[in-house]
Amino acid sequence: MATLSRLLSAIAPPSTDGVESWQRHLDSLTKPPGSLGRLEELALRLAVLRGGPPSVEQPVILTLAADHGVVAEGVSAYPQAVTAQMVANFVRGGAAVNVLARQAGARVVVADFGVAGPLGPAGGLVRCALAAGTQNMALGPAMTRAQAEQALEAGAELATEAIEAGADLLATGEMGIGNTTAASAITAALTGAAPERVTGRGAGADDAALARKVAVVRRALAANAPDPRDGLDVLAKVGGFEIAGLVGVVLAGAARRVPVALDGFIAGAAALVAVALAPAARHVLFAAHRSAEPGHALVLERLELAPYLDLGMRLGEGTGAVLFVHLARAAARLFCEMATFATAGVSERA
Amino acid sequence: MATLSRLLSAIAPPSTDGVESWQRHLDSLTKPPGSLGRLEELALRLAVLRGGPPSVEQPVILTLAADHGVVAEGVSAYPQAVTAQMVANFVRGGAAVNVLARQAGARVVVADFGVAGPLGPAGGLVRCALAAGTQNMALGPAMTRAQAEQALEAGAELATEAIEAGADLLATGEMGIGNTTAASAITAALTGAAPERVTGRGAGADDAALARKVAVVRRALAANAPDPRDGLDVLAKVGGFEIAGLVGVVLAGAARRVPVALDGFIAGAAALVAVALAPAARHVLFAAHRSAEPGHALVLERLELAPYLDLGMRLGEGTGAVLFVHLARAAARLFCEMATFATAGVSERA
Repeated sequence: MATLSRLLSAIAPPSTDGVESWQRHLDSLTKPPGSLGRLEELALRLAVLRGGPPSVEQPVILTLAADHGVVAEGVSAYPQAVTAQMVANFVRGGAAVNVLARQAGARVVVADFGVAGPLGPAGGLVRCALAAGTQNMALGPAMTRAQAEQALEAGAELATEAIEAGADLLATGEMGIGNTTAASAITAALTGAAPERVTGRGAGADDAALARKVAVVRRALAANAPDPRDGLDVLAKVGGFEIAGLVGVVLAGAARRVPVALDGFIAGAAALVAVALAPAARHVLFAAHRSAEPGHALVLERLELAPYLDLGMRLGEGTGAVLFVHLARAAARLFCEMATFATAGVSERA
Repeated sequence: MATLSRLLSAIAPPSTDGVESWQRHLDSLTKPPGSLGRLEELALRLAVLRGGPPSVEQPVILTLAADHGVVAEGVSAYPQAVTAQMVANFVRGGAAVNVLARQAGARVVVADFGVAGPLGPAGGLVRCALAAGTQNMALGPAMTRAQAEQALEAGAELATEAIEAGADLLATGEMGIGNTTAASAITAALTGAAPERVTGRGAGADDAALARKVAVVRRALAANAPDPRDGLDVLAKVGGFEIAGLVGVVLAGAARRVPVALDGFIAGAAALVAVALAPAARHVLFAAHRSAEPGHALVLERLELAPYLDLGMRLGEGTGAVLFVHLARAAARLFCEMATFATAGVSERA
């Protein structure tokens, strides 16, 4: 198993030696320079990470699921049983992320990182659970530090296996009733933002539930006093098992210079933790979309990432990240397949 | 051949009889209601147009090319020969739109609507040219009214053929050195906006060329006095052959209730003309993306369309429209393939 310290020591910024040559290649393609807008910037970043022509042919979506003790505080519009039910839906291929992944030619890895409900003999489900959900963070730490580290390492191991099997892009997905509350607490802890600024309606909290969520985030921060200079402390105290797994996914991608497409708010909170642990991890991050969750904007600002899609989505599962696969693949194929002015016999600017 | 009056008389708003039932279906799928954001609105519009479950499995990109006499005024950064050279590139499959269409599983129809340069025996090229480019609109009408109508009808015929061969979505594409100048003039004529507000750098005009473009648009409007209440008059006097063809594509889509994905500024100007001729045509229009051309924002506002992508693209060819195919297909497949709460045994809101 990849230990955390080994992972962190492998993370460094990618070499920028090839940048000028990749940019020259982009400018030699039959289009006015820069006219493909952000697809060109995307192609360039992918080329730098790969140290060569980019490729997005074997994307893998890692959809990690876990439950949250904090649901006892009435923060979610849905019962906790939905986490297990949706895992069954993922395994059968009926959820939104499955439909979108089939369309994008992406493999979905579904993993139990700590689901409370019964999962049964779900074929294909990867078992990484350390407990049947976290403890209630409004009363004390969600996880022990050792649990957080172990879940992180399990996520890193899943991602590393995917990379070794050929994955050229990792996309983050998650499922966990109550996990926007954890993401809000992580974001507040790491950015210093007020709980009301980073707490939203999640899967559909009404006004009363939203007020409860804000109060719970405030209580969780007060009860646990997470240390913003210690990402693992924040993760353990106010995070979740699937969020810890996603921190590991980001770090494993960073260690191997494989692009990581972040889905929405929960993935963004995991990325904040990852960057707190290893600042150079930011180089592999791509913000797939801007989620409708209000805290996401702040997360993207802190990560210095501009999202590629803005469709008002707030489902999670990896749905935004898998839509981004089409854009990343477009960028890579344009880089690799377009004719140049010279080969096509097209005149350049007058 | 589809005559213009026959086309216009076939255009009516789609029946909205099924809306409640399609919305109920969307809300029965295993996700919080509305959590797929604009993909849900997109799925609903596609279902209404089709009068049943949406399908985006056979998209066709119609990339129409023509030259513009107005290039004599020095409005473009590229020589006119590039139009013919790029048509050859399209036919060989080396242009950006070809790469993106292959990725999206979309067929590209490349048609000569009036290219000035020699095209040679380009296999697969559809020949619809009425002349070797338009006249210089700064001095007089770009086309005769009869030419504009004939080019429009040729575009409609191409689109109708595609629909009869199974196309379930039409995407607009174009190529024509100088055609952003025509699009600016159309937009100014139909909206009353000042030329400087709707004129941009196109493929890369420098400051001097941009100033010339603005002046040329102003001269073209003064010389021709296009009647804003007469879309065909505007099209003939300050349009272009490929733009006329795209007006026909929009109208043919509208007549058959087949969705039409608009690419950028030039397609938008064509859509403004189409809606001037048949206001109900707007129901089939989808704004694929927001182009970097400044006039495009006004076009979208007049068409009452919100773009789905905003990637700073300004290439044309249909490149933005073909990226949108992924989103439209995602919306359609989510509608058709997702499990429902009932079939998946997932609990609804508490």
